[in-house]
Amino acid sequence: MSQFDNVSVVKKAHVYFDGKCVSHTVLFPDGSRKTLGVILPASLNFNTGAPEVMEITAGRCRVQLAGQSEWQNYQAGDSFGVPGDSSFQIEVSDTLHYVCHFG
Amino acid sequence: MSQFDNVSVVKKAHVYFDGKCVSHTVLFPDGSRKTLGVILPASLNFNTGAPEVMEITAGRCRVQLAGQSEWQNYQAGDSFGVPGDSSFQIEVSDTLHYVCHFG
Repeated sequence: MSQFDNVSVVKKAHVYFDGKCVSHTVLFPDGSRKTLGVILPASLNFNTGAPEVMEITAGRCRVQLAGQSEWQNYQAGDSFGVPGDSSFQIEVSDTLHYVCHFG
Repeated sequence: MSQFDNVSVVKKAHVYFDGKCVSHTVLFPDGSRKTLGVILPASLNFNTGAPEVMEITAGRCRVQLAGQSEWQNYQAGDSFGVPGDSSFQIEVSDTLHYVCHFG
């Protein structure tokens, strides 16, 4: 599925880390919300509020979850989960396109 | 209106100019399409295929259309039109959030 249908999309983006991450919010008929974004090649640390699942739609990265010593590699088609009130370090080697699912 | 309702949104973004411009495509029930994007502070030259109207939802820029000597300033709430098969130079001073309307 290359697109979300029958959704609302917020016009204004969120821009993080001086533009290394740009994300748009998508609202679903059931009241849930996802963000759709891009992370440019960089090494960044993201904090989570709610638990989230990052679904990679294009690009390549490696990720280290808070409190873990291992890095995991992810690319298009992969997903990884992050607990709530936590953080993860991400190193993007090829510009990452992602969908972030919450809750 | 801060969001588009009852639309489809393409998951993968377009990334231009090494990430200085990130744009997502929004598809409307009538078959029309707009793009929703961000331009980081930079001086960039964009080419147009179809005629387009750039609606600024946040930020600040100045624009010089192809073949014109004057620069015009634009900010949130402003729009400017660009002919088809043309180009424009844009200097973004505050990160620009825009909706691009085609046709």
